[in-house]
Amino acid sequence: MNPVSSLKKRLKTENLDALFVSHPANVSYLSGFSGNESYILVTRGKDFFITDFRYYQQARLELKDFSIELTGEVNHFDLIAGLIKKSRLKRVGFEAKHITYGEVGKIRDRLNGQEFLPVFDFIEDMRVIKSARELEIISRCIQINLTALKDLKNRIAPDKEESEIAALMEYKMKLAGALRPAFDTIVLSGKNCSMPHGAPGARPIKNNHVVLVDSGVYFNGYNSDLTRMFLLGKIPPIINKILSVTQMAQEIAIGAVRPGITASVVDMAARDYIAKKGFARNFGHSLGHGVGREVHEAPQISARSKTILKPGMIFTVEPGIYIPGSGGVRLEDMVLVTEKGVKVLSR
Amino acid sequence: MNPVSSLKKRLKTENLDALFVSHPANVSYLSGFSGNESYILVTRGKDFFITDFRYYQQARLELKDFSIELTGEVNHFDLIAGLIKKSRLKRVGFEAKHITYGEVGKIRDRLNGQEFLPVFDFIEDMRVIKSARELEIISRCIQINLTALKDLKNRIAPDKEESEIAALMEYKMKLAGALRPAFDTIVLSGKNCSMPHGAPGARPIKNNHVVLVDSGVYFNGYNSDLTRMFLLGKIPPIINKILSVTQMAQEIAIGAVRPGITASVVDMAARDYIAKKGFARNFGHSLGHGVGREVHEAPQISARSKTILKPGMIFTVEPGIYIPGSGGVRLEDMVLVTEKGVKVLSR
Repeated sequence: MNPVSSLKKRLKTENLDALFVSHPANVSYLSGFSGNESYILVTRGKDFFITDFRYYQQARLELKDFSIELTGEVNHFDLIAGLIKKSRLKRVGFEAKHITYGEVGKIRDRLNGQEFLPVFDFIEDMRVIKSARELEIISRCIQINLTALKDLKNRIAPDKEESEIAALMEYKMKLAGALRPAFDTIVLSGKNCSMPHGAPGARPIKNNHVVLVDSGVYFNGYNSDLTRMFLLGKIPPIINKILSVTQMAQEIAIGAVRPGITASVVDMAARDYIAKKGFARNFGHSLGHGVGREVHEAPQISARSKTILKPGMIFTVEPGIYIPGSGGVRLEDMVLVTEKGVKVLSR
Repeated sequence: MNPVSSLKKRLKTENLDALFVSHPANVSYLSGFSGNESYILVTRGKDFFITDFRYYQQARLELKDFSIELTGEVNHFDLIAGLIKKSRLKRVGFEAKHITYGEVGKIRDRLNGQEFLPVFDFIEDMRVIKSARELEIISRCIQINLTALKDLKNRIAPDKEESEIAALMEYKMKLAGALRPAFDTIVLSGKNCSMPHGAPGARPIKNNHVVLVDSGVYFNGYNSDLTRMFLLGKIPPIINKILSVTQMAQEIAIGAVRPGITASVVDMAARDYIAKKGFARNFGHSLGHGVGREVHEAPQISARSKTILKPGMIFTVEPGIYIPGSGGVRLEDMVLVTEKGVKVLSR
């Protein structure tokens, strides 16, 4: 079923006449439209796509299932309130996690008695299961990301600065087809790798260092997110040790993925192994997160997550071990939950 | 007066006990702090900086004038509501243009009788006048941007693709010191330059083409935004014509800038000249916008803007002429309003 039809069904069960969609990732998800600053009003009947002169022609050509409404002469608050009144909608939901308090006030001020009501996660709940087409685009993001990482390999060398490598990685991703990096590329070397949220600096990389590269590609409305470790020269024994523990923890976690189990089981599979090897206190973040139209989205793969895994979910598996003063390791791949179990998308 | 002191004065005149600040650019403006996902509660007495484990140590070291409050064990809604109650605040404002409807609900649910009230633009109103320190950082952004543009010049050549040049520009900005591009770099060539909002494509640049490069640097919390035209070979007469009209329109507009006049006067100076030369219908956007912690911020420099220019304002002056089917030109520089008149920052 296409996303708009699924949403109409949900509106019926929730006793709503319409949903006003303002979160850009959700607008794109429902329409496939790539422009910005546009809105959708999905009703149980006709659906409206609200945009300005920059995107009007493109929207009229591409979005056959929507009535295209032009803002500009009329501001978008007046336009939305007008559509609600004209379509005789009595109970209209809005995305409370995304719309600002000010915007809700401006729309409500223009209504006469129609209810404008907060709802949560209607579209996020649908986005968690990826379609074949979405899988195809995300796989393309991953391929672009891997191509750039492969190109980068020969350029990581002593005396290069972390921030220089980060800039080069982003350049290579764009040349390989990315619209932009999915997030600021993290490049850390040596002891700096112990900071899970560190930023690349003007620190030169040294021989006998590991280099952590956490990068993502944004392409065609979707994202990838991968972390790789590069080894330069002779690596200290403690780093070799945590590298092999992290590798095994990742294998165990990926091996645990299958439909029907709770996401926390996957997190705990990696966490228990890391704890057994003596590094319980050195893995402070959750194991993974969904990736799609946003770099971080549902499902969360953490020790507390109650999400039941289903075929079509795509998420990262990224155990890490961080030892302040010594260094750190993180390995991050992206996996797909299949009918039978799991497919690693990033190898 | 420092921004927090100015804000406290405003709270007094508005009969508020405190302002809850959630917009990242405003949080950084008040504190100088560079991390994300942090909040500030400014009261008429003690001020609070609310952050998580990632930024806690850094905040404690850097922010001497704030009480640093740690979220994590306590979620940030509980923490904020707790601070409001503990500090006996009765009327607390929030930034209605930025905070989501859902967040306001979650904080209000945790209060008992204290008022949590929408306010608009308290901090944006202050940000419009730049301090000497802000001017220094923005000037640095501009220098990085100009260095990259200069480097780019020799690399723009026939057969290169627009998107390849955009990727190269972003790489050069990062190598020159940018944290990231301020926005997706626009590179358009030949007839494509007629689209003011076009995106670079896989189109090869040709000889006898103009190339438009609209780029910005983000560095140390501030931005730049500059557009340059590069000429390859022999340019068509119509493009030469609109290039010289645009240049003159920009000079006239810059010449009109001085404290005490309305921003619309500056816009109309360029607009009238372009109209007089026969291109009234080919300059469809406003003349400029403020640049600072956000790439687009106050003051707006448009035909309708009622803002009175004051020393310390920084904005773009970017007239453009766009002729569908033929091509287009835009020239964008950044200027500072001084006590005596104007200083161009980007030449």
